[in-house]
Amino acid sequence: MEMSQLPSPDKKGRLYIVGIGPGSVEQLTGAALKAIRASEYVIGSGTYLDMIASLLDGKRVIRSGMGREVERAHESLELSRESTVAVVSGGDPGIYGMAGIVLEVAEKMGIAANIEVIPGVTAASASAALLGSPLSGDYVSISLSDLLTPWDIIRKRLCLAFSMGVPVVLYNPRSRGRPGRFREAMELALKARPPGTPVGIVRNAYREGEQVIVTTLEKAAVSHDDVDMHTTVIVGGEESRIWRTGNGERIITPRGYHRKYEY
Amino acid sequence: MEMSQLPSPDKKGRLYIVGIGPGSVEQLTGAALKAIRASEYVIGSGTYLDMIASLLDGKRVIRSGMGREVERAHESLELSRESTVAVVSGGDPGIYGMAGIVLEVAEKMGIAANIEVIPGVTAASASAALLGSPLSGDYVSISLSDLLTPWDIIRKRLCLAFSMGVPVVLYNPRSRGRPGRFREAMELALKARPPGTPVGIVRNAYREGEQVIVTTLEKAAVSHDDVDMHTTVIVGGEESRIWRTGNGERIITPRGYHRKYEY
Repeated sequence: MEMSQLPSPDKKGRLYIVGIGPGSVEQLTGAALKAIRASEYVIGSGTYLDMIASLLDGKRVIRSGMGREVERAHESLELSRESTVAVVSGGDPGIYGMAGIVLEVAEKMGIAANIEVIPGVTAASASAALLGSPLSGDYVSISLSDLLTPWDIIRKRLCLAFSMGVPVVLYNPRSRGRPGRFREAMELALKARPPGTPVGIVRNAYREGEQVIVTTLEKAAVSHDDVDMHTTVIVGGEESRIWRTGNGERIITPRGYHRKYEY
Repeated sequence: MEMSQLPSPDKKGRLYIVGIGPGSVEQLTGAALKAIRASEYVIGSGTYLDMIASLLDGKRVIRSGMGREVERAHESLELSRESTVAVVSGGDPGIYGMAGIVLEVAEKMGIAANIEVIPGVTAASASAALLGSPLSGDYVSISLSDLLTPWDIIRKRLCLAFSMGVPVVLYNPRSRGRPGRFREAMELALKARPPGTPVGIVRNAYREGEQVIVTTLEKAAVSHDDVDMHTTVIVGGEESRIWRTGNGERIITPRGYHRKYEY
């Protein structure tokens, strides 16, 4: 049963929760483009609407501020009773995006039909692509933002994640409101992993001002001016290594082929 | 520094490692389409080439079998010395895809320039979109395939992942060669989480034969005929719940807005 095929005899409208990927319009899927094209209303935070400005001609555009997700969810759902609406979300809407809050509010409002989530390229995939192949296999994704999750819970998750030995992707690694959290996370990582563990820092992936930095855990723990809210950080796992090419450095986490094959 | 901008004075060729997303051509990004269009050679396993058959007119297509990733990596890199080559990978190439092994082999061969990874929609995002919003925030991704990673390591990762309390995405959950692993994983989950924990099972996401099932941990532990190698399984976290709508069931993992807002 695909959501888009849910019956909806009594509803005229439709709500797409659209992942727009990391930044550039080239990183949207065909399905995401189609949903936006089909929509009368496009709702999102200014940052994301600016990224897809070239797709908004002739649309009724509703700009909503950061931190106003609950309101945006309400408004999108209300409009979708009668109209086709796209609420846009950076990366993938199901990962630190709008899908969760829209469905939570939809549940409260008793609206279920005609809501479709359109997946997108999440920051973990986008940053990994620019760094080489730092994930490759199993990994953990954790946001360092304590706006919606208490820090003691995040801290516990970080400790368990680092003890798993797999790469860890950090979303929202640093903001002005909590400058010390990133350093604390790096110190937790250093308790479980060697100081030379590769760390990848990607700022503004596939956007203007893109920056890709390969460093180590010990360096990241003391110097992190490059880390802000537009950054994704990948801490390598037990097997991750830095490949020093003639053209710069990349991170490789072997998938395990070396345990079975010679190459 | 973006990889695509690496200098390459002495090389004519180019290698794109392209994520084609979960299945349908609509789920490819514009950048992925562009890379395939620009390529003379397209290399991949038959399953993935069939999914993008409509894009292969006029291409030199090299079909390679499952399990021949090392060979495929070699061949792609050799061809990319002189030609533009796309090696295609299901989902995102950086997550259980071709990026890792291609870069490992490139490192051995001393080829670095002109390799670009094009990210795609990974199965975690695709399956989550069809299930509602089962991830929403932090999560762990683990493959149950023990072809490249010993089972005792996978088992240790599963125990730590379930004790984190966050949703866990299981890739390659079951194959004929290891029918008991999925049940073992569910039993490990049951030691850490209540029997009513939501479990989402998505088979053939965005492909023919798509199937989306919402069930619980205790049910998934005893009956799993729906689970095979074309399936992704999401085990809910501590806060995940099933939303029983008039039109079917979805999984919602609240992001944490309820701790700050009324809605």
